Amino acid sequence: MPLTVLVIEDDEAIQGVVEDALSEGGFEAAMARTGEEAVTLLKGRLLRYRALVTDIKLLGKFNGWEVARAARDVDPNFPVVYMSGVAAREWATQGVPNSIMLQKPFATAQLTTALSQLLNERLAAGSSKA
Amino acid sequence: MPLTVLVIEDDEAIQGVVEDALSEGGFEAAMARTGEEAVTLLKGRLLRYRALVTDIKLLGKFNGWEVARAARDVDPNFPVVYMSGVAAREWATQGVPNSIMLQKPFATAQLTTALSQLLNERLAAGSSKA
Amino acid sequence: MPLTVLVIEDDEAIQGVVEDALSEGGFEAAMARTGEEAVTLLKGRLLRYRALVTDIKLLGKFNGWEVARAARDVDPNFPVVYMSGVAAREWATQGVPNSIMLQKPFATAQLTTALSQLLNERLAAGSSKA
Amino acid sequence: MPLTVLVIEDDEAIQGVVEDALSEGGFEAAMARTGEEAVTLLKGRLLRYRALVTDIKLLGKFNGWEVARAARDVDPNFPVVYMSGVAAREWATQGVPNSIMLQKPFATAQLTTALSQLLNERLAAGSSKA
Amino acid sequence: MPLTVLVIEDDEAIQGVVEDALSEGGFEAAMARTGEEAVTLLKGRLLRYRALVTDIKLLGKFNGWEVARAARDVDPNFPVVYMSGVAAREWATQGVPNSIMLQKPFATAQLTTALSQLLNERLAAGSSKA
Amino acid sequence: MPLTVLVIEDDEAIQGVVEDALSEGGFEAAMARTGEEAVTLLKGRLLRYRALVTDIKLLGKFNGWEVARAARDVDPNFPVVYMSGVAAREWATQGVPNSIMLQKPFATAQLTTALSQLLNERLAAGSSKA
Repeated sequence: MPLTVLVIEDDEAIQGVVEDALSEGGFEAAMARTGEEAVTLLKGRLLRYRALVTDIKLLGKFNGWEVARAARDVDPNFPVVYMSGVAAREWATQGVPNSIMLQKPFATAQLTTALSQLLNERLAAGSSKA
Repeated sequence: MPLTVLVIEDDEAIQGVVEDALSEGGFEAAMARTGEEAVTLLKGRLLRYRALVTDIKLLGKFNGWEVARAARDVDPNFPVVYMSGVAAREWATQGVPNSIMLQKPFATAQLTTALSQLLNERLAAGSSKA
Repeated sequence: MPLTVLVIEDDEAIQGVVEDALSEGGFEAAMARTGEEAVTLLKGRLLRYRALVTDIKLLGKFNGWEVARAARDVDPNFPVVYMSGVAAREWATQGVPNSIMLQKPFATAQLTTALSQLLNERLAAGSSKA
Repeated sequence: MPLTVLVIEDDEAIQGVVEDALSEGGFEAAMARTGEEAVTLLKGRLLRYRALVTDIKLLGKFNGWEVARAARDVDPNFPVVYMSGVAAREWATQGVPNSIMLQKPFATAQLTTALSQLLNERLAAGSSKA
Repeated sequence: MPLTVLVIEDDEAIQGVVEDALSEGGFEAAMARTGEEAVTLLKGRLLRYRALVTDIKLLGKFNGWEVARAARDVDPNFPVVYMSGVAAREWATQGVPNSIMLQKPFATAQLTTALSQLLNERLAAGSSKA
Repeated sequence: MPLTVLVIEDDEAIQGVVEDALSEGGFEAAMARTGEEAVTLLKGRLLRYRALVTDIKLLGKFNGWEVARAARDVDPNFPVVYMSGVAAREWATQGVPNSIMLQKPFATAQLTTALSQLLNERLAAGSSKA
């Protein structure tokens, strides 16, 4: 019963790297190609995603900052990891609290460690609410 | 040479509490009554503010979330403390990273400790950039 | 509308120091003299306490470790600060997670900072649950 | 010379997952099947365990909360990671300070990251005491 | 029985500010005027100092970086707070781990919060060693 | 485009372990055999190293403490991980702020987690400076 992480990334090369990294860390990646698709999936709650990993510049009308806010609207403790190159400098202004920005290029261990840090803190904070 | 903190709060009773708390902690409060006034002061940089303490619901067209983003546009490490009652629940969605939300009512020590924590981290992180 | 902190301490000299420290920090101290009294007050929830400050060796059948566990049963995020001399060494074994142990003697600023740190984290974590 | 982690888990499927995760992270798992066995091993100190990874509901008379307290009695800085499903909600009441609760199911990276965080902090804190 | 903090500062105006801040926070300041004097006091251990607050540029042959290392030689967990203007930028290179740099000018609450943060962490980490 | 980490270690067995651990985590190791070589590489800035992983006792005239200070002179936020056996106890005195000491022997996950923690914090802190 793997933990499913919702990933929004349209660059296929980076998609592959992210999927491999998550798989090695014991996570399962569910890929969304646009922000709209991701928001629909998060709000539908048909599948229980455990975290969001998102690029900033997305196909379609939403960017990564907006998708993360939509995810936090659904669950205010939702773990969020952003990945970006040039947009990383906007994190201090546009990011949500308790999120992590990975500046591209990053090592795969940075991604699995970032997710684990956020999930481990969340479990601790939320352990009494299950 | 006290450290000046920009405070946006239109409730005069809370203004007084905040001014007293800051004064006891060795800070000086510069009061702004609207978000526009605060944004103008921050962008003008005539006075060097060290931190922002802001209510969420403000007179005028900006709210506290927007003023904080404007402050971070000017300085991405700018310390931000929000104060709110009902809007505190939106912090996980609307707050900037590395900010602190004080839910009203709060004790004065919470405010001076919040500012000191943010300033002490900032000094450490920025000590080589002075 | 001050924030009420439940304090369990039977040494009157330390009671006075704690009351003064809390008062200067903008908190109000509600004193309990035994663990039973504190547990009854916490479970009754007639007054909304914001934090527990407790000695370890208490009059009556409960010790401070047990009162803190009772408080966390009622609210799993309840801020807990222990104060002790010799029993401080048992904190790693008997303390609850995310609590702070102040070894006597301590400075008053240590107590108000400890409470503020725990309350500020709690507000952040719990801002969406209000 | 691998670092040996004492693991208490009676579900063989989870045992396998934990052993694989630890092995990939460069740790060696020493399995105990009951709390009594674990407490005997920890107190005997014949082998130097570096951390405890324990389920909460255990075969025999001890549960995971009690084994962790016994480990901290021997070494107050001993790294503790709990794994549980339903009992995760009791962590805020029954866990020891500076421990991590992993709610099942968890990703393998969460376990190795949790252990590494606790060990890295411990080495830092204890580096002068060797 | 106040907690004594060793302070090295030769500017009398700042000495006064530091003494007042410590006194309000429940600490007692013991002033040293040179690094040599401070090192002698720390190594003599006649009085049990709980923390060091030091300027960087000192009268005599030692600077604040060197005094802090001498203090850590005596006690590797000793709380250290540096105060400086221009030398703050050297903290990342010359400071000891787990210390705090206060860039002048600072608010008094920053100093008492810095000391309390370091002391509260130390008590937690060291609670079993008393 | 892997992230290159500068590693100073003359024991070939540990070199191999470190290289394998970094490679599995998605990092690339650039080995230096002496402190002088490392300092020359860091100051030359021909290749952009992302972090330093260094033993304490080195061949040549510099030790690991000195190389780390040289790296921080070039970039005050440079991530530093020390590896040592007996010298680990000197970390509290000789280490730079915000560094991690890994006491040998350590698990490979401890190294990749340490690097990821330092890099993830750095990216967050520095996201606006790119």
